[in-house]
Order: sequence, then structure tokens, then C-alpha cells
Amino acid sequence: MHDYHLTLHSDKYQINMMYAHWLQGTHRHKAVFEVYFRKLPFGNGYGVFAGLERIVQYIQSIRFGDEEIAYLRTQEEQYQEAFLDELKRFRFNGNLSSVLEGTLVFPSEPLIRVEADMFEAQFVETAILNFMNYQSLIATKASRIKQVAPHDVLLEFGTRRAQEADAAIWGARAAYIAGFHATSNMRAGMLFGIPAKGTHAHSWVQAHDSEEEAFRRYAQALPDEVTLLVDTYDTLQSGVPHAIATARLLQQMGKRMSGIRLDSGDLAYLSQQARKMLDEAGFPDVKIVASNDLDENIIEGLKTQDAKIDVWGVGTQLITAADQPALGGVYKLVAREKDGDYVPVIKISGNPEKVSNPGFKEAYRIVNKQTGKAVADYLALRHETDIRDGERIKLFDPVHPYIHKYIEDYEPIPLLKPIFSEGKLVYELPSLEAIRTYHAEQKDMFWPQYLRKLNPAVYRVNLSTAAWELKMDLIHQYQGHQLHE
Amino acid sequence: MHDYHLTLHSDKYQINMMYAHWLQGTHRHKAVFEVYFRKLPFGNGYGVFAGLERIVQYIQSIRFGDEEIAYLRTQEEQYQEAFLDELKRFRFNGNLSSVLEGTLVFPSEPLIRVEADMFEAQFVETAILNFMNYQSLIATKASRIKQVAPHDVLLEFGTRRAQEADAAIWGARAAYIAGFHATSNMRAGMLFGIPAKGTHAHSWVQAHDSEEEAFRRYAQALPDEVTLLVDTYDTLQSGVPHAIATARLLQQMGKRMSGIRLDSGDLAYLSQQARKMLDEAGFPDVKIVASNDLDENIIEGLKTQDAKIDVWGVGTQLITAADQPALGGVYKLVAREKDGDYVPVIKISGNPEKVSNPGFKEAYRIVNKQTGKAVADYLALRHETDIRDGERIKLFDPVHPYIHKYIEDYEPIPLLKPIFSEGKLVYELPSLEAIRTYHAEQKDMFWPQYLRKLNPAVYRVNLSTAAWELKMDLIHQYQGHQLHE
Repeated sequence: MHDYHLTLHSDKYQINMMYAHWLQGTHRHKAVFEVYFRKLPFGNGYGVFAGLERIVQYIQSIRFGDEEIAYLRTQEEQYQEAFLDELKRFRFNGNLSSVLEGTLVFPSEPLIRVEADMFEAQFVETAILNFMNYQSLIATKASRIKQVAPHDVLLEFGTRRAQEADAAIWGARAAYIAGFHATSNMRAGMLFGIPAKGTHAHSWVQAHDSEEEAFRRYAQALPDEVTLLVDTYDTLQSGVPHAIATARLLQQMGKRMSGIRLDSGDLAYLSQQARKMLDEAGFPDVKIVASNDLDENIIEGLKTQDAKIDVWGVGTQLITAADQPALGGVYKLVAREKDGDYVPVIKISGNPEKVSNPGFKEAYRIVNKQTGKAVADYLALRHETDIRDGERIKLFDPVHPYIHKYIEDYEPIPLLKPIFSEGKLVYELPSLEAIRTYHAEQKDMFWPQYLRKLNPAVYRVNLSTAAWELKMDLIHQYQGHQLHE
Repeated sequence: MHDYHLTLHSDKYQINMMYAHWLQGTHRHKAVFEVYFRKLPFGNGYGVFAGLERIVQYIQSIRFGDEEIAYLRTQEEQYQEAFLDELKRFRFNGNLSSVLEGTLVFPSEPLIRVEADMFEAQFVETAILNFMNYQSLIATKASRIKQVAPHDVLLEFGTRRAQEADAAIWGARAAYIAGFHATSNMRAGMLFGIPAKGTHAHSWVQAHDSEEEAFRRYAQALPDEVTLLVDTYDTLQSGVPHAIATARLLQQMGKRMSGIRLDSGDLAYLSQQARKMLDEAGFPDVKIVASNDLDENIIEGLKTQDAKIDVWGVGTQLITAADQPALGGVYKLVAREKDGDYVPVIKISGNPEKVSNPGFKEAYRIVNKQTGKAVADYLALRHETDIRDGERIKLFDPVHPYIHKYIEDYEPIPLLKPIFSEGKLVYELPSLEAIRTYHAEQKDMFWPQYLRKLNPAVYRVNLSTAAWELKMDLIHQYQGHQLHE
């Protein structure tokens, strides 16, 4: 394998901008960037944030070593040696705040905020987006699947269809955060402590003279973990009867068969028939596992038709987020140092959704003190104190400003937690189990209408009046400035 | 970062099956597996095979070290220590044949064939599928994009939306094989020697008091590689005029501006207007680069509307293969050792496409000696000599067997090349440039009707008569056997 060092997991233009800043002497000017996405994936009502652990590891590991420097020396840009020396000394010395993994998140709110020298803040963009976009996407997809089967066992089975090796393990981890129970991927099991599950493939059956012999041999080899794949030849005529014979054999050995797995055919019909056959044979405890291109819609449809499935093995559709395989998270400059102070900056676009929210901001979740439920998220400029102190605030719809309300008696929960402070990690990464528990608790903070799979209610992310007015001012100023200068 | 060792990049059930084989003493019996996919992605007429280099590296690197063994010891299966000792000695000692990277490939034909001890052949399944599925998928997607813009410059820009870090680099490599010219990902540049390209982001413009200043400064910093992003505030009113002013400045410096980049808005209209403005200002050589969620359909539409775009930066849609983010490649047992000989095996399914093609086979591309063009691919059992000797063969449609023809005066090109022989690498991995050239040559072997993007002609993969009869025999035998035993 090639060198696994991830330092150059970045876009060339980051290095070019760093070089240009360095040449003009602005590379040590401070900059504030925000990570956010503009639109929820899958028509879901919320996103599930993930990727922070990987981001922390990446930032701590950045080192421009001999190989990286030698490579940069070959580039057509012909960077000056003094710049390459600066890179050799590169360390992230800035501040980074982030939403915690497992938090429910919404469009346009800052998920990560980087405040650092332009040199450092610019460089980490690509990797942060790559990790956050994929892992949050899969956590969100897994959460949708969890919503339709909240009491069933959910297994992540996607490695062979994942988009390369990293996706397999980080996707398995994201699914586990969102409530999946296990993965088939052993590397994810080893690295992250996720329970790893697996039984046998068609090849096990094909490798024996008969299905009956294959089942019997498997049960003798692994008597405590027997889930038999019953569709190699004919599910109801051959697979299930042979599985029942094997269950009897296990019974004689003083063991209990765990389950059977259906991997093709009509899963509703087959599971009902198999359930009946198992029950009638005296094995009501043998579980039925289903796999075969499942997603939240197929699972919901099968449950509506009263399929008798206890365990869902979800592969391709989850690990690639097949119906929307990218979360469009972006990393935008919101403020920059000028004459020793921060000035807010904006990106204008003909598309209103693409106009950025300028200024150094904080994000709060407004929680009703009576119900304990989240009311809305609120983005305020950092100097605003009314929200921090729980004073009366105004929520309004910027598109229809006459729609507004005042909120009081709430708890403002800051969403962005300090992770790095002047380059030092000030946050203790929680265990994966703790993240998974935190995520489950977070869902309890939301009314069910925000959590449903189809046509969920829209949970609002509001700008404070001051943040909104700053945005309007800058739009007018920049448009006027550019058009008439 | 956690240990990067990829050995356990595999599914738990592989280990369980290996364990069960080991317990029953069949782990050293030989097995033959084939990798193939059942359906072409994107409605394309061909696939582009990729992933072999990664597979070779993986197979050579498999080592069950202390960490892997310690992890396996914790599993609920409670594997015997003697089995774990066997794993510590694991090396791939089998034969592996494969289609070469860059080859055009089609459904149902073997792309990789593994002939090895069951113990080894079973273990490598997951990683082989993971690498082959993703890399071939992206190479095929990139090839579609190349078909609609064969004479333009194509840049891979997807890292921030790729499904984690590995996808970014191996996807960039697959795109390069299929004819892309460069990537934004520096790690892919460093590891694979792909040209890396990049200019600046909106943040560069936002980091200055005006767009004009930002452009001027950038041109002064990197005068030989200036492509200016012109849509931060207003493309035609501000961006392009400032870019033209910068081009004049560069001219005075004795330099030439490379291009401008459009990243939002109507790319057809904006490119035409920008082209006109650049031409009228005396800069007909300044290229127009476009990006913003492009794929082969959008590019084709823009070209139909005579957009003036010279360079395409393709991101999300390519690196995730967004319209079909997984290739469903499978790994199926086709023969197994019994009493010292191979017996063919089959997997039956209610879905005819899912019935496997049994037997130890070879795959040939039949090339017409007069035209040099490929006629069909042909799968024969390994003992069949007529195809190897170029004798008259019969091609027939198994669904409609009355449709058939006889072929003679052809060259049979074996598609599967020996890669590992008894565990030894017998194939010299070619350079990436050689693979890219080979791919371009391969396309020339096909008539254009197979290469078009929409509704391509179906290129046939035929079973030999003997292979077809074997399949029919086994279907009857297994179905009868299982139903009436």
C-alpha cells in the first residue's frame, strides 16, 4: 500500500491560495469559516452530525514531511523554498468549535466553526468537508431506517458495495451512532468496537453435496451462532425445511438456532410462510433475518404488509446513501481580520439559498422549559447577549417577515462546543457508545412531526435580527460597490 | 489515525466460513470463484474495469498480526486457538486471473477468477468486490463524461463530496484511466502521479477589500497559472470585467492569463457572454472553465446550446456516481474440488439473471480479423479448444435460441490474464499512463453504436454450447434434487 499519510487529502487550490497569502503577507491574518449544508438529504426533517472524531485525528496528524514537500516541489507553480519551509512548520494553532457527533442538525446553521490564521483555516477545508459530508450523510440515512424499524435489530452489511475501504468503516460507524446494532465489517469492529456479525454465504451451501449437509456442518461448527441462509436453491421447498431439521439437531445438542436469513424473492410472502413453518415446527424463537437491497421505504412497505422479519441486514442503499449519495456541505468565510478587528464578509449569489450568512456567529437550540422540546435554532452574532441570557427574543421568517413570534422562558443550548483552542485539543472525544446514547437522547428533544420520514414539519433555523440586518447591509453594500465602482 | 492495516477489510461471515471449513477439514480443498456484475450502470453500453492494482496490493499485504488476532479472540464465536494460529500463517497461495484495468467489460462475464484453497479464496471476496465495484463504477461514469466531451479538458474536482478519503484518490485514479486530464486532489497527485490542478476559491476574493484587488494579487502571486473565479459577486457585471483588467495586467508583465471559472448561474448564457467579452477585449486564448454539479447529461445539454466552455470541472456527480452509486459486482463459486477433481456448482434463483454460470471458464473477446472490431465476448469451459484455436463457433441467444450465427476468421483474445500464480505475482503492474493509453485503444475496438450514452446497442456475451448445456443440466439436477430428496 502507498503511504497512508493524509496530509495532502486536500485540494490543490488550498495550497495555491496559501501560497498567494504568504507572498502578500496575509497568511497570518485571522479568518473565520463556517461549515454548513443548505438542504437536508432524502427529504428528511433533520440531519445527524458525524465526522468530528475523524476531523480531530486529521487535524492533529497534519505534517508536511519529506514526501509531501518533494511532491510540491515538482508542481508547475514552482513554489518558493521559503514557502515550503513554512509548510514544514505547519501546525493547526487555531480555534475550532463543532456540534457534537450525534446531534440533530438543520440547514444553514454552522456545524463547525474554524477561527485561525488564514494559512491554517484555508488548508483544512477539504478534509473537514470530506469527512463531515460523508459521515453525516450516512448517519442521517441510517437514522431514517431506524425510524421505520425502531424496535428491530439493524445490521450494516454494505462493505462490498461501499465506495472504497474508508467508506466501509466510517459508514459503519455513522450507522452505529444512528442506532444500528452491528456491522459485518471486521475492521470497523476492531477499530471502533462495533459488534461484528455474520453467518455464511451461498458459497458455503454450494461447497457441500447438499444443502442439508451444509446446514448440519455449519451448525456443528458454530453451534452458538447459527443463522442459516435458506435461498441458495429454493427457500420454502428446500431452505426452510432443511433449516428446521438443523434446528432439531441443535436442540438435541442442547443448543438453540438463532435464525434464518432470506436474501431474495418476495420477502413479505417468504417471511410469513417461513414464520408459519418455524412456529409449527416448534421454533417460535428462531428469528427471521432479511437482506437484499433494503432501504427505509422497502422496510416500511414490508412492515405494512406484515412481513415477519425481526432483523434487517441493510447494505448498498445505506452505505452509499443511494438515493442521494452526497451531502452538499460547504465551508464559507464569514469574517476576516482587518486592521486588527474582524470584518464580516458575504458570498452573493443569484440563488437566495446560496447567499452566505455573514459574521462571527453562535448557534443556539431554543428549548421550551415546560416541555423540554426544541422550538427552533437561533443564529446570533457573538456579541449578542439576550439569547445567551435567555431574554425575550424575536423569531421571524426572513422570506415573510410579517410571520414572527416572541419567545421567552426558554433554555438556550449552545450548539458549537470548543474542540481546539489555540491548536490544543480541549475536548475529550467520547466513546462510541456515549455518542450513540447521546444521539438517542437528542431525538427525544424533538416533536415527532419533525422526525417522520415523509413530509416532515420544517424545523426553523432563525437568524437574530442583528444577524439578518448585517446580511441585508452587506448584500446592498457589495452589490452596489461591485456594480458601480 | 487508527492502524491502517487492511487485512480485516472483510466481512465477518468470511471468517466464520473459514472456521467451519477448517473444523471439518475442507479448508485446503480447491475452489474457483468468479467476479462479475449482472447489469451495466447508468444505462451505459459497456463498463470500464478498474481496481486491479489495489487488489494486488491488498492480497500481498494480508497479514493477521497481533492486533487482528487479539480482536478475533474477543468474538462471541470463540474460535479455537489452533484456527487463529492457522490465520497467523495466512498467505494467498492461489491463482488469480483478471481482466486488465482499462478494459471494456460487460455483464455476466468473469472479470476476476480466483482459484485457490477454499480458505484463501473465501477470505479475499469482500475486499476484491469493494475495490472492483467502486473503481470500475467511477471509471465507467468518467468514460461516459469523456464520450460527450472527447476534445475538451476534463478535471476531477470531487474530493469534498467523495465518500471519505479512499474514494477521493481511487476515484480520481479511475477517472484518469477513463480519459480525465487532472484532479484537484493532491494526495492522488502524489501517490499516482496524476496532474493536480487548482486555482482559487470564493474565500480568496472575500479575503480582500475588492474583487479587483483579489484578482490582481492572485495574478501577481501565481502569474503562470491564473484562472480566476468570477462569480463571487456578479459574474458579468463584476467578475468578467475584473478578470479582463487582470489579463491586461498580466500582459504588461509579459504573461498570459489561463482562464476564468464559472461556478454558478446559467453556464450556457454566462459562458457565451463571457466569451464575447474576452474576445472583444483581445483575449481569445483565455479559456472558460465551468463547474457546478456537472454530469454527462448537463455537459451534453450545454454543448447542444453552444455553451463556450473549454474545460469542465466535474465533482460530486462523478466521484459518487450519483445516479447509480454502486456497481452490483458479485463473487460466486463456480467449481469446487471433490475427490481430487473440480465439480461445477450453481446458484439457483427465481430471477433468471441471478442464476450463476457454473464451471471453470475462460472468457474471450472475438475480434473480426477484417475490421479489427469486437464482435462479441464468449465464455467457454476451460477444456474447450475450438475457440482457442480460432475454429468456427456458434453464437446464440439463450433466451431465443433460434437466433444464432456461426463465426469464423476471428481472433480470440483471452480476457483473463494471469496475475498471481501459486501466490506469486506473475504480472508487472503497468504505469497509470500505460493503463490510460490502453483504455483509449480498447475503445477503438468497438463500433460507435456500443459506445453511445443513451440506448446503446447491446454487445453480446455468449456462453459456449457446452457451457450452456452444463448450466441447464445443473439447474435440472439441483432443482430436482432439492425438491424431491
